[in-house]
Amino acid sequence: MPGPQPPVARVRHTVRTFLDERLATGRLRPGDLLLVACSGGPDSLALAAATAFVAPRLGLRAGAVVVDHGLQGGSATIADTARAACADLDLEPATVVRVQMPPDNPDGPEGGARAVRYNALTEEVARTGAAAVLLGHTRDDQAETVLLALARGSGTRSLAGMAAVREPFWRPLLSATRADTHAVCEALGLPVWHDPSNAVDGPWRTADGEPLRRSAIRHVVLPTLTEALGPGVPESLARTAELARADAVLLDELTDQAWERLACSEPNGTVTAPVGELAEVPTAVRRRLLRRLALAAGCPGGALSHAHTERMDALVIAWTGQGPVHLPGGIDAVRTCGRLVLRVGPARPAR
Amino acid sequence: MPGPQPPVARVRHTVRTFLDERLATGRLRPGDLLLVACSGGPDSLALAAATAFVAPRLGLRAGAVVVDHGLQGGSATIADTARAACADLDLEPATVVRVQMPPDNPDGPEGGARAVRYNALTEEVARTGAAAVLLGHTRDDQAETVLLALARGSGTRSLAGMAAVREPFWRPLLSATRADTHAVCEALGLPVWHDPSNAVDGPWRTADGEPLRRSAIRHVVLPTLTEALGPGVPESLARTAELARADAVLLDELTDQAWERLACSEPNGTVTAPVGELAEVPTAVRRRLLRRLALAAGCPGGALSHAHTERMDALVIAWTGQGPVHLPGGIDAVRTCGRLVLRVGPARPAR
Repeated sequence: MPGPQPPVARVRHTVRTFLDERLATGRLRPGDLLLVACSGGPDSLALAAATAFVAPRLGLRAGAVVVDHGLQGGSATIADTARAACADLDLEPATVVRVQMPPDNPDGPEGGARAVRYNALTEEVARTGAAAVLLGHTRDDQAETVLLALARGSGTRSLAGMAAVREPFWRPLLSATRADTHAVCEALGLPVWHDPSNAVDGPWRTADGEPLRRSAIRHVVLPTLTEALGPGVPESLARTAELARADAVLLDELTDQAWERLACSEPNGTVTAPVGELAEVPTAVRRRLLRRLALAAGCPGGALSHAHTERMDALVIAWTGQGPVHLPGGIDAVRTCGRLVLRVGPARPAR
Repeated sequence: MPGPQPPVARVRHTVRTFLDERLATGRLRPGDLLLVACSGGPDSLALAAATAFVAPRLGLRAGAVVVDHGLQGGSATIADTARAACADLDLEPATVVRVQMPPDNPDGPEGGARAVRYNALTEEVARTGAAAVLLGHTRDDQAETVLLALARGSGTRSLAGMAAVREPFWRPLLSATRADTHAVCEALGLPVWHDPSNAVDGPWRTADGEPLRRSAIRHVVLPTLTEALGPGVPESLARTAELARADAVLLDELTDQAWERLACSEPNGTVTAPVGELAEVPTAVRRRLLRRLALAAGCPGGALSHAHTERMDALVIAWTGQGPVHLPGGIDAVRTCGRLVLRVGPARPAR
């Protein structure tokens, strides 16, 4: 009997290596249930097939959950087909969860759908007692995520891309390629649903002309980058993410320590820190700490920009008597009596 | 009398702000000489013009140096035209330095020309007693550098891009745009030389089909990225560089401290460090430290990859009795008697 085709073997091996490591470190125990989040697309179907093969051999149970966003006509049929495919792979339970999209989302249509989906999956974990939800993101998805972060200019934490583990979500395929997941579906004859917005010539703007940023990265930017610089680009981007992740973990820890030492939250919501000691903190940590101070004082994170952090930093390291720095959410940062003070500012004229 | 056109005023202001800050911190003193490195292209000509205007008003002297690589026919004429333009701007001295390109360079044709140019400029600093060489790199160049680093997958230090100051080179225009430098040349009627490899439809491969990576980034990748994601992309990439630079500075300092504490260089060239203490070092620092240990043992930096570092790291944190890790330059890393030992390995069969 011939063995499985090479892509099938590779993806199984990738999943097995990932789960072995979770078992070895005690984060997963024999008998535990894993839920594969399946969209019906090739990545998650390939993950479903590999998990269905590997899990019983490791003494684990594997089920599937399909989230139906109801975003396009026929979404219920797509979801039912995906669920049936998972059931055919002997994933048990295999369920469809129907969710409603909020009408508007500040993160755009892609971000909104993602938030709703992750909420629904977290609820399924609670309902079924599963150890984790497995997501089908591949190295190619990771490369796209890194490019998006880069284009936003949002620093090391964003460049770190998607985590392989962020409970309850695990991503066993971050070291697998999209070429392999597609080949797996082909080899096993799985009933793949191709999202029209993922088609090579698909629309990558909404009807309103808003860019679907990830689609643009996937269909326009990454192919151009690979054509210009060579086929190793997705792997390089994924490696950048891995290196950035280790850096971000350490820098966040150092920021935790600086916070413990320097930040003072008063009962009325005012947050302060001593300017002299702040100035001694290395720039990389100080910027992170200033951002956290602003968040603790009540600034909404989405509106707090790098420019705001820079102006707060000037109060600390380039003090020439300047007035309050106005931050989002009506918070003012001022330097007074040797301390940086963040508090609700006096009412300001509407702009 | 009307003031200067807005791009002229902006670029002058950018140069003045940069030099003011150097004067304020004592890195520059009245009477000092600055040399503008001028290629004859629009960025460095705009820098030359702005420096010629600003420097005397700050009590500084400004000259120019043009490096002639002799790489294309007519290069001597191009260099002489650039020199004459600088002299017309009252930059004094204004000299041409002719250099010879080495026949081959491991970093490709662009890297080779850069190394030769920077050497020649450093010699001019020594010869003239200048305080620094001013380079005309703009925010757009920085954005390209970050994309190149990203595509190589080489981590936070590379993502930090070009430093505003790396003695004796200063880059006052990193916050200016290429659109402004081009507009300055137009407004002042400067005799701009347009490098054919910088033309919008210029060749971005050598005659041998080797990609001219920076040209490809400039003419293919960045326009695509901007088209797909919006006009703020170069600024976001430059901000990524700035954030990554602060992170890299701190992580390198922490690596210095770990090196002082743990690394041991023996007279015979062997380099060792205690495994137990290495394992306690945070991943981000440990990876950097392992790379430095390998370099100190004699590994050539260009050949030492992330995969090599990973295999060394496995000796420290995933030890299962594995044998030596073979590194470039004939160095072996082994774990023995509680220490990681890097030394010249026994002769290995050629592969």
